Amino acid sequence: MLSTHGANVKQLCIKYNLNEDKITDFSSNINIFKPHINYELLAENISFSINRYPDIEYSELKENISHLYKIDKNYIQVGNGATELIYDLLLLDEFKNIGIFNPTFSEYERASLINKKNVIDLDINKIDQIDENTTIKDFKNLYLQENVNIPDILILCNPNNPTGIITNLQNLIKFCKKNNIFLLVDETFIDFMYNENFSLISNIKLYDNLIILNAITKFFAMTGARLGYTFCSNKDINRALEKIKKPWSINILAEEVIKQLCNINTDFYEKTKNYFTNESKRLYDKYSSIKNISITNSSAPFFTISLHDKNAQELQKKLLLEKNILIRTLNNYKNISKNSIRIAIKEKHINDMLFDILSDYF
Amino acid sequence: MLSTHGANVKQLCIKYNLNEDKITDFSSNINIFKPHINYELLAENISFSINRYPDIEYSELKENISHLYKIDKNYIQVGNGATELIYDLLLLDEFKNIGIFNPTFSEYERASLINKKNVIDLDINKIDQIDENTTIKDFKNLYLQENVNIPDILILCNPNNPTGIITNLQNLIKFCKKNNIFLLVDETFIDFMYNENFSLISNIKLYDNLIILNAITKFFAMTGARLGYTFCSNKDINRALEKIKKPWSINILAEEVIKQLCNINTDFYEKTKNYFTNESKRLYDKYSSIKNISITNSSAPFFTISLHDKNAQELQKKLLLEKNILIRTLNNYKNISKNSIRIAIKEKHINDMLFDILSDYF
Repeated sequence: MLSTHGANVKQLCIKYNLNEDKITDFSSNINIFKPHINYELLAENISFSINRYPDIEYSELKENISHLYKIDKNYIQVGNGATELIYDLLLLDEFKNIGIFNPTFSEYERASLINKKNVIDLDINKIDQIDENTTIKDFKNLYLQENVNIPDILILCNPNNPTGIITNLQNLIKFCKKNNIFLLVDETFIDFMYNENFSLISNIKLYDNLIILNAITKFFAMTGARLGYTFCSNKDINRALEKIKKPWSINILAEEVIKQLCNINTDFYEKTKNYFTNESKRLYDKYSSIKNISITNSSAPFFTISLHDKNAQELQKKLLLEKNILIRTLNNYKNISKNSIRIAIKEKHINDMLFDILSDYF
Repeated sequence: MLSTHGANVKQLCIKYNLNEDKITDFSSNINIFKPHINYELLAENISFSINRYPDIEYSELKENISHLYKIDKNYIQVGNGATELIYDLLLLDEFKNIGIFNPTFSEYERASLINKKNVIDLDINKIDQIDENTTIKDFKNLYLQENVNIPDILILCNPNNPTGIITNLQNLIKFCKKNNIFLLVDETFIDFMYNENFSLISNIKLYDNLIILNAITKFFAMTGARLGYTFCSNKDINRALEKIKKPWSINILAEEVIKQLCNINTDFYEKTKNYFTNESKRLYDKYSSIKNISITNSSAPFFTISLHDKNAQELQKKLLLEKNILIRTLNNYKNISKNSIRIAIKEKHINDMLFDILSDYF
């Protein structure tokens, strides 16, 4: 069960004997804007305190995240990237049957299986059928084969990864609450566009069965610093996470970065949301004119193209070898055509360059 | 099962309303010398690549560790500090019954219990009774109560933490090999003194049941960077670790630090070994003159004092409140007097300051 992901540029370059610096990477979805970081100050602080252990309870770190997201400090848990929190959450005894809305980020399933949990595949394309009147029996009829356990927790990424489609989750969270099911919503990509009305962050206090996951990885483009966090008002879950938490899992670079992000200019949010909203719309219109493909209407910094009569694997290899371009194939994702690809939204001229190549190809 | 450790200076200061900057911390065992790091270059490299994912296979990182320790790259696994590797190793199905030589670092037991493994306490004071003729029956008689399973893996820290006592493990590794038992040796503190003859690092290829654990945390004083590594020639174990490895668990600061440590001057090793060897001897002689205590003959950058007629907890609180000094109590360690304390070796004048205070107290 090796981890397989996009963004594995180095390994692909070794495999095909390519120059890594020449690759244009459409396979990882990182913000093209970088928040302002004072690296001189960062280096000074790291130099001063690198020989000290991080605070094992992360008081200051949690205060900074609390400030950045306007969330009660006591609702916050931190991890070495969102990944560590996924693995820790899915290790909890509270969660034995894990319902995962697919297609989605592969680590939810991998973490469940490594932790020897029972995985239940849920087709996200049917999620709109859950309305305010849905009963547990309806849910079983809709989703579960006979003799399949009712999940203790449902997991989804909103906006979805890889499609970028965003879902109104008000009915789902109510359904979960009524039926004592936890809901884990990964909001890693929510801040890239004007998705505020879809975020469940303001529902944290109201719903103690809700866990929101986020990280500095994507929106703040702080991928290498490794810091993720969950927001949850349920004391039992927070206590359970603390009980199994590995000590000192957050490094000092992450601590220093979040300190500076606290003072981030609101312009950074506006610039990002504005750019990705417009660029996503522009690309949707352009790609919609091409026959033989379907493109998702995305609210995230990427979108999915399904190829009607071409092979995605072949396209990926061709682009890499002939054009030094890396895209993400989705053949290991569930509930989506195997001949689908995920394309990150980059700078305009780079997006156009890819469009020109692809429109010739399709 | 919350993690409890030394070095939790911040939390103790909050509890007792003390000024953290004024505390002299004898509770964490970090090298007092810092290797030379070019922080300007570090900041430049981090700034350049913080928005990229770390190489998921850590090729360059492993090459650098390979260079630093003169170890075959294929024998290396990396983790977010030694801690993550302890948790990953003890999650493997190969290890169900975990024999831990106590007293020792508490995370081996915590990781075993969180991973729902069976923990077997082994008294390290009896380890010298394992000789070249020891059979599995002898081992059972020496260590295991009736109906206790034979461990799949034995774990010890060499030199031991908290006593600092170093053990010749040649008989133990042979005994383990003969009986299909793995041996995990944590050598985090081995480079502080001239302990080369006790290290099993040159036995990695010969013994495929041997796993050595180390980190940049202590010797290189790179605590906040979070990087640990195991050395093991057993392909099945390395493959099993890769199968459960969380993706991107190493941050970019750790990657940059190890790059620079590769070019470290050998003087750093000499200076450290020389200082701690002499200072340990000097302190041993001084403390040996005090009645009513026993002091360990340590080969590590710390030593243990057992108090014959005083309470260790009271002493800890008294030193903290009256002198702003933090020491480590050992009441949660097994096979050692509850009234023991662990003292880190710091700069000479600081060690003398503590000696003067303690010799008045005992």
